[in-house]
Amino acid sequence: MISFDFFSKDKIQAQHSTSDALDMFTSIINDERFGFVRLFERKDLLDKCKETFQKFKNKKHFVHVGIGGSALGTEMLIKGLAKNDFPFTLINNIDPDEMNAQIKKLNLKECVFFFVSKSGGTAETMATLAIITSELIKLGVKENELKEYFVFATDPVKSDLLELGQNLEITCLEIPSDVGGRFSALTPVGLFPALFAGINIDDLYTGAMAYKKELLKKENNSLVDGCNFLYALAQNGVNQTVLMPYSSKLKELSFWFVQLWAESLGKKTNLNGKIIHSGLTPIPAYGATDQHSQMQLFMEGPYDKCLILLEVENFENDFSLASPFAGPAFERLRSKSLSQLIKAEFYGTLKALKESERPFIHMKVSKRDEMHLASMVLYFEALTALMGAYLQINPFDQPGVEAGKIFAYEFLEKTQ
Amino acid sequence: MISFDFFSKDKIQAQHSTSDALDMFTSIINDERFGFVRLFERKDLLDKCKETFQKFKNKKHFVHVGIGGSALGTEMLIKGLAKNDFPFTLINNIDPDEMNAQIKKLNLKECVFFFVSKSGGTAETMATLAIITSELIKLGVKENELKEYFVFATDPVKSDLLELGQNLEITCLEIPSDVGGRFSALTPVGLFPALFAGINIDDLYTGAMAYKKELLKKENNSLVDGCNFLYALAQNGVNQTVLMPYSSKLKELSFWFVQLWAESLGKKTNLNGKIIHSGLTPIPAYGATDQHSQMQLFMEGPYDKCLILLEVENFENDFSLASPFAGPAFERLRSKSLSQLIKAEFYGTLKALKESERPFIHMKVSKRDEMHLASMVLYFEALTALMGAYLQINPFDQPGVEAGKIFAYEFLEKTQ
Repeated sequence: MISFDFFSKDKIQAQHSTSDALDMFTSIINDERFGFVRLFERKDLLDKCKETFQKFKNKKHFVHVGIGGSALGTEMLIKGLAKNDFPFTLINNIDPDEMNAQIKKLNLKECVFFFVSKSGGTAETMATLAIITSELIKLGVKENELKEYFVFATDPVKSDLLELGQNLEITCLEIPSDVGGRFSALTPVGLFPALFAGINIDDLYTGAMAYKKELLKKENNSLVDGCNFLYALAQNGVNQTVLMPYSSKLKELSFWFVQLWAESLGKKTNLNGKIIHSGLTPIPAYGATDQHSQMQLFMEGPYDKCLILLEVENFENDFSLASPFAGPAFERLRSKSLSQLIKAEFYGTLKALKESERPFIHMKVSKRDEMHLASMVLYFEALTALMGAYLQINPFDQPGVEAGKIFAYEFLEKTQ
Repeated sequence: MISFDFFSKDKIQAQHSTSDALDMFTSIINDERFGFVRLFERKDLLDKCKETFQKFKNKKHFVHVGIGGSALGTEMLIKGLAKNDFPFTLINNIDPDEMNAQIKKLNLKECVFFFVSKSGGTAETMATLAIITSELIKLGVKENELKEYFVFATDPVKSDLLELGQNLEITCLEIPSDVGGRFSALTPVGLFPALFAGINIDDLYTGAMAYKKELLKKENNSLVDGCNFLYALAQNGVNQTVLMPYSSKLKELSFWFVQLWAESLGKKTNLNGKIIHSGLTPIPAYGATDQHSQMQLFMEGPYDKCLILLEVENFENDFSLASPFAGPAFERLRSKSLSQLIKAEFYGTLKALKESERPFIHMKVSKRDEMHLASMVLYFEALTALMGAYLQINPFDQPGVEAGKIFAYEFLEKTQ
């Protein structure tokens, strides 16, 4: 399924034995507050998404409204796996010029709008909800007809959005209370939009369930190996983690990982309240493109980065590189295919990193499909949770952004 | 035009006086090898782009083919400034599945294809040229008719692409020999596509020419202040630079900056050949979105980042946030506008960073238009060049990616 190979010039001293690390991991996933692994037993979530999809599938355009954990996982699934070109618009910011450009392109009455907020009160998402509502009302839609255009996803227990949804009889999909925003890619946040893109959501859950066994096996455990590797490097100053899939379609996997890793591990205090300012800095990248952008720094800059290079073994398509043109640049390519070129660039980079004594993880998936993407999502989520345990912090909260929100509301209050 | 405000909890010790730093900068821009500031005197480049645009403007779709410095500047201009929806496709990678998805969406005979490679031999771009040529030939296009579909941009003196262009009478636009790939956004690499997007390229050059005076003024020089600020921080371990525009349309400015900063400053040796492994690590971000993704780390993680927060003072559009809905999330927004909300989030973040004693640069532009974007491009290019001088490295080469390329060709050679 997924294979791993670790390279570091220095020998890695494991922080925890596999059995100790597995005990730590098991206690996390058995903690009733953290449901990200149990999620895949929730067949009811799949069913509710499918039922809602049946209701809205005749709409011409899908508009996803969410920010951070309410958007990044969805983008990753759609870009990574979409089987069709169902028109998809993502509204994930409050730039008035961007909003205007996005809205004016849409025939609003032909859209299904999916508003996603775990807390049910995210300012950016509520602002967009207010704007879209006004625009629909201008087009003659009545308040009690909004349910024909809107679907909400939010916490099922307590949320302003939930209450509004119940008042207006708008379909509300559940983001389970025990699954935090950045762990919610495979909840209805991602699953409902995925259906419009022709993605097999059953396969997502099947893949994740199967991969759960890998995470818990007692020998050659890649989760523990990965965590030991990255933790040991971080203790030696290598505290930046580059995720670099060699695939344009997996570029958004990298951005999803950025939030997961940054927000989970960047903490002021540890579990004992001691001030530690922990954090491993994630850096998004994708190959071969970033060989022409960031690789110079990765290869020759400070020794502070570990690269996770992700190889997709089999592509679905390929192209011959034969051409009628003369010259060395064309000669070299003539008898080759595009997939051979991207592979050669991948292995060329790997070899160059090794020669430069830069640490890396070579991660290989046999193909880019539902089963493998769900497995990778689960791997990185588990890696983040276990790394949080290694660092003795809480990887499931995000206290540091609260001050900014309070100050923002103060500034907003004062605005005339 | 652009204003700057610097915050750091510790007093910054300037590495160089303004007059010394300006002497360093002047000697860089007077060096005949480095033409990025002289570029804006080249009215002939604008004219040639306009003339070529007249020839191809009736095409239905623009396809840009390039990687790294041949793509990032163009993306930044198109996303940042496009006045229309002229269909634009960017092919900047060699993922066979992505390539297939891109090509099958295009009506190839209605496209203008713009192949960009400074060296004229970039493997990824030549591979794509081979593929597009095959596809057009399948559609009945003859080799001597390719000039009706193709435009090249490359070095005007020596390049495989130039030679091919001359043989096939394909229009070749010039990337001046003294302007490196990552400094080429405002050469025909970006200018020719910009015309299709309705961007005023004269204003780009006018803006850059005007801003050049700012870079050279003897007092309150923001270039020198910025360089002294970031250099002093880097000497104290703050060696990661986050560029965070509060604008979705300027998100690509951040990615363009990533290449510029990473590839220019990440060097193994200094000018004396001493091994130093220099480099400031750029991190892409954009607000308000990344408040929900990376801000937790920026606020509470290790003290190793300086944020450049970019405020756009005036938006062209705005929206009222009034809605018929009850609940605190809606009440707070009711009498406000979207531009007020993004402003409040910007200033809330600024205040929270200050309270957390995190260093930042508050950069403010009055609006997002041609003049200001060109000024910012020139500012960051100049900052990179001067930082190179501070670090005593060559910011205009990229030796570290050569080994990877050689190994890639070795692997390709062996592939059957």
